[in-house]
Amino acid sequence: MQNTVRVAVDAMGGDNAPLEIVKGAVEAVNESTNIFVYLVGKKPDIDAELGKYTFDTTRIEVVHAEEVITNNEAPVLAIRRKKESSIVVALNLIKSGKADAFVSAGSTGAVLVGAQLIAGRIKGVERPPLAPLIPTVNGVSLLIDCGANVDARASHLVQFAKMGSIYMENVVGIKNPRVAIVNIGAEEEKGNALVKETFPLLKSCTDINFIGSIEAREIPSGAADVIVCEAFVGNVILKLYEGLSSALVKKIKAGLTSTPISTIGAALVKPALKKTLKDFDLTGYGGAPMLGLNGLVVKTHGSSHSIEIKNSILQCITFKKANIKEKIEQNLQVVE
Amino acid sequence: MQNTVRVAVDAMGGDNAPLEIVKGAVEAVNESTNIFVYLVGKKPDIDAELGKYTFDTTRIEVVHAEEVITNNEAPVLAIRRKKESSIVVALNLIKSGKADAFVSAGSTGAVLVGAQLIAGRIKGVERPPLAPLIPTVNGVSLLIDCGANVDARASHLVQFAKMGSIYMENVVGIKNPRVAIVNIGAEEEKGNALVKETFPLLKSCTDINFIGSIEAREIPSGAADVIVCEAFVGNVILKLYEGLSSALVKKIKAGLTSTPISTIGAALVKPALKKTLKDFDLTGYGGAPMLGLNGLVVKTHGSSHSIEIKNSILQCITFKKANIKEKIEQNLQVVE
Repeated sequence: MQNTVRVAVDAMGGDNAPLEIVKGAVEAVNESTNIFVYLVGKKPDIDAELGKYTFDTTRIEVVHAEEVITNNEAPVLAIRRKKESSIVVALNLIKSGKADAFVSAGSTGAVLVGAQLIAGRIKGVERPPLAPLIPTVNGVSLLIDCGANVDARASHLVQFAKMGSIYMENVVGIKNPRVAIVNIGAEEEKGNALVKETFPLLKSCTDINFIGSIEAREIPSGAADVIVCEAFVGNVILKLYEGLSSALVKKIKAGLTSTPISTIGAALVKPALKKTLKDFDLTGYGGAPMLGLNGLVVKTHGSSHSIEIKNSILQCITFKKANIKEKIEQNLQVVE
Repeated sequence: MQNTVRVAVDAMGGDNAPLEIVKGAVEAVNESTNIFVYLVGKKPDIDAELGKYTFDTTRIEVVHAEEVITNNEAPVLAIRRKKESSIVVALNLIKSGKADAFVSAGSTGAVLVGAQLIAGRIKGVERPPLAPLIPTVNGVSLLIDCGANVDARASHLVQFAKMGSIYMENVVGIKNPRVAIVNIGAEEEKGNALVKETFPLLKSCTDINFIGSIEAREIPSGAADVIVCEAFVGNVILKLYEGLSSALVKKIKAGLTSTPISTIGAALVKPALKKTLKDFDLTGYGGAPMLGLNGLVVKTHGSSHSIEIKNSILQCITFKKANIKEKIEQNLQVVE
């Protein structure tokens, strides 16, 4: 049990809860013997789902939580009031040291707020960023920050760059990751007040591979591994990625069947095209880690199916093995 | 000549100048008898290109300008120093009343700075926004502002909403256009400081059809006609549109020929697909107007070919006919 990673999973969060969440948890423990899962939520519902599967019953424990926080609730209020919600109960498992990580497909705002209030920040971390991996032509890049706290300061962005760099190097396995800041031009004098203030600070960091500004146009081509931005901008990038990909796929599907000849061709290209488009589907990329917390918190897409839940849970193994928390702690303290 | 719209065209601006610019100007005067074009730039080069075509020579006049401002020059300095550049000479034609409009595929920064300094703002306009049309699943939306002036104030955004609304209604022909502000959630309490300050101001405007916040995810589906945002965010949206569309198209092309069977299918779907993808190609949409100036300024894509130059020139007819300048003047003065 020494190498076991204990993951608290929000069984009630997301569009497909508890069905797909429970399924994903079972798949994770069946795939890796290093995983122990706490399934947190309404026990009768979870037990009913668990009854469908065969798995090592010593590695899944159901922890009852009576309440559920919905996407429509104001996060801070919900976390304070719903002490018996699956999110709060699960985060308390991290706080008490029973769990190493927390995975949720529930309300992003509530997960972010709860994680800070309950699990707490690593010493030295000013603001914990949410950092999803986004698909590019060559692979993936880390978009940091897409969280709920907008109007960041320059010092926050510098920490995002450091934490993102550690994550990409140690969890995703990209040696000496290229760090860039989102800007509206390549020149150093371009940008808004925040970018202009942050740019020289990043340039003077000796512990990251800062390559300068990145225009949004270059993001999908994989021009940087760690893409640093303030959360409002990060959110716009992430959401536009989703919206534009799905609009284009819709257009393409309509185009493929717009003439009798193209309809025949469409049947022939469909399997190959499906694979290609899946590479650019954001929902396929497990969860987004929230960095800088005592304990890993992974926020997966609200529409997650069992595969994403499973991947998010398994991701916690690498995270723990690589000692990300300790690395962040050391790295930020050296500089502070 | 009473209905003639006189357009000064920057013959030296863009990747394909002067060849495609001159060609586009000729196509415009050949298509509409209401157009008169000043081709501004190096006379010998322009004359050489003009020699290739047949057109009504009374409706194209070459105005010599010795200098060219490149994309690498700092805009303010370039405008101040290069008095004989095609951009400055062309804008002076507006200032002196000889031209009604200016079309350029050259340096965005120089065009924006020059337009404000030389053509000047309409009385009451605090900041002239650059407002390109972006493709959506249903048609087009106006993205306002994508200009060079970042860190806007709430009052600027309110003016963008009003000017954008007038443009969409009168030039693009969308009755009672839906105006939305880019935000990171649909609820009124969400957003950064700027959005939170602007939201109630937009809500209280009786002369626009404000529908609230728009998440970036909904932009490509055409959820609003006028999309209001600060220039840094607008630039990110515009550039990501370009980058993501081209990355996806690249991926799709590779996917189409990834197996022997799909390669056969690819040949059959190609014509239909080409048309579909063209609908989502930003470069196909003429130019982006810069609103709030004395005289219409249209900035077209740097990679513009004759078709975009022609469309940008022809766009000036509608703009003048619809009295956009007068409408903006009246509308903003009522509120100030």
